Amino acid sequence: MKKFVNDPANFVPEFMKGVVLANPDLLEFVPEFQMIKRKDRPVADKVSVIQGSGSGHEPAHVMAVGPGMLDGACQGAVFAAPPVDACYETIKALASDAGVLVLVNNYQGDRMAWETAIELAEAEDIKVKSFIINDDVAVKDSLYTVGRRGVAGNFFVIKACGAAAAQGKSLDEILAIAEKVNNNVRTMGVALTSCIPPAKGTTIFDLGDDEMEVGVGIHGEPGRRREKIHPANQIVDELFDAVAQDIPYKSGDRVALMVNGLGGTPISELYVLYAHAHERCEQAGYTVVRNYVGEYCTSLEMAGASLTLLKLDSELEAYLAAPAEVAVRIF
Amino acid sequence: MKKFVNDPANFVPEFMKGVVLANPDLLEFVPEFQMIKRKDRPVADKVSVIQGSGSGHEPAHVMAVGPGMLDGACQGAVFAAPPVDACYETIKALASDAGVLVLVNNYQGDRMAWETAIELAEAEDIKVKSFIINDDVAVKDSLYTVGRRGVAGNFFVIKACGAAAAQGKSLDEILAIAEKVNNNVRTMGVALTSCIPPAKGTTIFDLGDDEMEVGVGIHGEPGRRREKIHPANQIVDELFDAVAQDIPYKSGDRVALMVNGLGGTPISELYVLYAHAHERCEQAGYTVVRNYVGEYCTSLEMAGASLTLLKLDSELEAYLAAPAEVAVRIF
Repeated sequence: MKKFVNDPANFVPEFMKGVVLANPDLLEFVPEFQMIKRKDRPVADKVSVIQGSGSGHEPAHVMAVGPGMLDGACQGAVFAAPPVDACYETIKALASDAGVLVLVNNYQGDRMAWETAIELAEAEDIKVKSFIINDDVAVKDSLYTVGRRGVAGNFFVIKACGAAAAQGKSLDEILAIAEKVNNNVRTMGVALTSCIPPAKGTTIFDLGDDEMEVGVGIHGEPGRRREKIHPANQIVDELFDAVAQDIPYKSGDRVALMVNGLGGTPISELYVLYAHAHERCEQAGYTVVRNYVGEYCTSLEMAGASLTLLKLDSELEAYLAAPAEVAVRIF
Repeated sequence: MKKFVNDPANFVPEFMKGVVLANPDLLEFVPEFQMIKRKDRPVADKVSVIQGSGSGHEPAHVMAVGPGMLDGACQGAVFAAPPVDACYETIKALASDAGVLVLVNNYQGDRMAWETAIELAEAEDIKVKSFIINDDVAVKDSLYTVGRRGVAGNFFVIKACGAAAAQGKSLDEILAIAEKVNNNVRTMGVALTSCIPPAKGTTIFDLGDDEMEVGVGIHGEPGRRREKIHPANQIVDELFDAVAQDIPYKSGDRVALMVNGLGGTPISELYVLYAHAHERCEQAGYTVVRNYVGEYCTSLEMAGASLTLLKLDSELEAYLAAPAEVAVRIF
């Protein structure tokens, strides 16, 4: 197994420890619940925005904790939902008078864990609401979902809600923002290789040397179809057409365009994809107001990428431009 | 070949085009010389800091162009030095009254190209000096070098010189800063897999399923030895001991600690490495003042990582903390 691991059973707490050692002023690690939270949250008059899901999608979710982003997050094992008690304790640790918003990507395991945790928290009079993210246009239902999956579009929901929370918006106002982002964001991805979960030690699916999985899920779930690998621009065309036709986006739209690496693809290749995706936006009459090229929602070391479009209005543009700080950075 | 490419011959200009499309206000692309430069440079009273080397190490070098970093950079093909005319034109495009500083990583091809280009520029009375970076402790000489190689420590030289140039320091002052950083920075890396240069289409070296290359170069050059893969912490120990004993760093030192991914290793694994590297610093009595976990100098999609220590003083701490902006970012 070509990975940097010690005991695979400790992979998640070990990388979480690294994140907190690298951000000692900002973050606090609660190992018992595999939770990372902002040291300076909760505060009574600010909504806390939280999340929790399986590990293996870093920087989502625990590396997206910080000012203007998530206030806290808990992680399950790699590709496994967090346990109910971790979700409950994360709500409790971030509970504020203004309330808690839980952003849940649409996977059955995550939904069940958070629903139960929210019931437990409400029984203690904690003010908490949740919102389900489902931006992946690839498949209607999938291996782990009823309905569409939540993938890289999650980043934009976090960014907008985190900015709104920092500005002191109410729980209902932030819930409306989450809904607006989710209604206007669409994603599709493609895998060139499988990843290797540390505890499994082997690939989770097999692709031929000349094959790709179009519409892959971030746990290696099947997508729309398996194809021969195409030139980069043709792959962008497949992803772009599927995404753009879904809402559909229209000429004149102002958009954020994201090319997200799935973990094992170098940034040079992501910029090859970006160049053509940007051109496709221009040809379609969309103005690319903000762009995002890098890793936002990954599948361990999977080689692959996803393309996300978010239709903007002045409110969302302001939230995306607002300051924010997380563990992952170049400076 | 499991890569996002169109025609491999166009891989470099295509990703460069993507970088400039994503940063239209900041950057300008000169395709003829595979050069990217800041739109707002040169200015007469500021030293221009430039670089140019083979492609395949992104974000080094063209994705490190921006305010407080490089003013311009040119790229050769993947793992090939840039041609003399590209180096010469980059110097000329960034020439200013205050002068040009060329930061050259220590590879024979790069040195020869830049030396000739500098002679040509000097013949036109352009004020230009160069500095050679050689932070890799792995081997004394190597496949492409006489003396040590320049690797991820390059980032710190760029960051400090870029900050000093932005503050209006003179060419000689910035040269002294480059020398101070290079004298105090040391790196060693390890590869778990080979990368695949797009134009070659196959791996450049072969490692067994249970092997790693300790002290690998960023073009897949041999390092110190080939070993069975060890647990992550033991790998960190090997890198840390080699780096820390080199200067040597001493108890009481204030340091910047970098864990750099070589392209195919997910950020979760880099933080596993960081956690133990941070602990080793603490045990050795070094205070980690700044930390860097991510991709700074890569080898296409190679799975692997390098560890860098930089000994700080108050001047270098201030330069590292100064504002800067480049293409690669999460927001």
